[in-house]
Amino acid sequence: MTKAVILLSGGLDSATTLAIARDRGYACYALSIDYAQRHGAELAAAEKMARSIGASEHRIVKVDLSAFGGSALTDVSIAVPTEGIKAGIPVTYVPARNTIMLSLALAWAEVLKSHDIFIGVNAVDYSGYPDCRPEYIAAFEQMANLATKAAIEGSKLSIHAPLISLSKAEIIRQGMLLGVDYSQTVSCYQADAAGLACGKCDSCRLRRAGFTAAEVPDPTRYRAPG
Amino acid sequence: MTKAVILLSGGLDSATTLAIARDRGYACYALSIDYAQRHGAELAAAEKMARSIGASEHRIVKVDLSAFGGSALTDVSIAVPTEGIKAGIPVTYVPARNTIMLSLALAWAEVLKSHDIFIGVNAVDYSGYPDCRPEYIAAFEQMANLATKAAIEGSKLSIHAPLISLSKAEIIRQGMLLGVDYSQTVSCYQADAAGLACGKCDSCRLRRAGFTAAEVPDPTRYRAPG
Repeated sequence: MTKAVILLSGGLDSATTLAIARDRGYACYALSIDYAQRHGAELAAAEKMARSIGASEHRIVKVDLSAFGGSALTDVSIAVPTEGIKAGIPVTYVPARNTIMLSLALAWAEVLKSHDIFIGVNAVDYSGYPDCRPEYIAAFEQMANLATKAAIEGSKLSIHAPLISLSKAEIIRQGMLLGVDYSQTVSCYQADAAGLACGKCDSCRLRRAGFTAAEVPDPTRYRAPG
Repeated sequence: MTKAVILLSGGLDSATTLAIARDRGYACYALSIDYAQRHGAELAAAEKMARSIGASEHRIVKVDLSAFGGSALTDVSIAVPTEGIKAGIPVTYVPARNTIMLSLALAWAEVLKSHDIFIGVNAVDYSGYPDCRPEYIAAFEQMANLATKAAIEGSKLSIHAPLISLSKAEIIRQGMLLGVDYSQTVSCYQADAAGLACGKCDSCRLRRAGFTAAEVPDPTRYRAPG
């Protein structure tokens, strides 16, 4: 079986991506990054999804991005916006996050002799993050193909972003067909320790709108409004 | 003063790079990565060099690459070669190391609103690592300029690799002119806790040959042969 490294946050998009990679026949090596994110509960969700979707292995690697801060997700003094989605890149943007995560995936892929990395970025129903765009993914792939011993020895690495041009509703429909249990995924930027969602942050709003548009009952576990 | 992020390992090349960036007038934010490297003593050397060369700030960020292994520097069960430099990429190559380090530098640069990253890679007297080549650095820069909020807002990021086409002797001569105290740098792949060098690994050999070619007495602190 061909090995692939799958970046798995524990949210809806990356769980769907893992299910797609499994469905395409890859042996899936799921990688989660503990970057001191505010919503650390997503890592427990990642663990569950890796097991339920059938990853061959799941690793959590720590890199403390709170050392740099600069984002509502890595600096607790910056509040997560809950007033609705606004134009522009929000304060939940984490500087260079996808670049750091893809770099770690690249390292593991090389050790595994894998030539395939999957990432659940999406450029339709998303928050305008620069590192979710197709041109960014293409540039990372090009760089990666100059970066490694494997590349020099002639093996071509591919970055797969199977959700990149799907709407949130299309992602959900695809995941449902593949049997993903979305009740166990955590998308909320300020999920509590039990993984219960706030229902008000941008990520909760995009997710809820997706279930509505997909005409699927929203299985998200919300916490009681406080 | 314009801010720059300088990747500082504690070795000869990165110390020289820091001195060059200071000499060019940058306020230098030195970044060291604790990746569970065998030669952890280089981090203490980095601390000293940041202070003696005059960095504005020095941070050490942890990312545990021993979770992946695949290199003599991150897996203690793989021995560091000491028989002399051979053709090909040696087992001291760490998968995706420079990509991971540059990604972390990119994150800090964005938070600092800096547009300049310095890295001490060298493609002349080096060990043949793929991520030390000019085409790799250019591809990383291109990717970085699509990756961040800062890039989308129009600020251009530059990756500076001032040593890339210098010989080890030329690097040493330049550092001497800038007052770098090489006795405090640690290049050895298996330096002991006190920072004493083995004198036999590829990194020690390249370094020693550099001092010889530069006609400068070698100030390296070697340990007694055991």
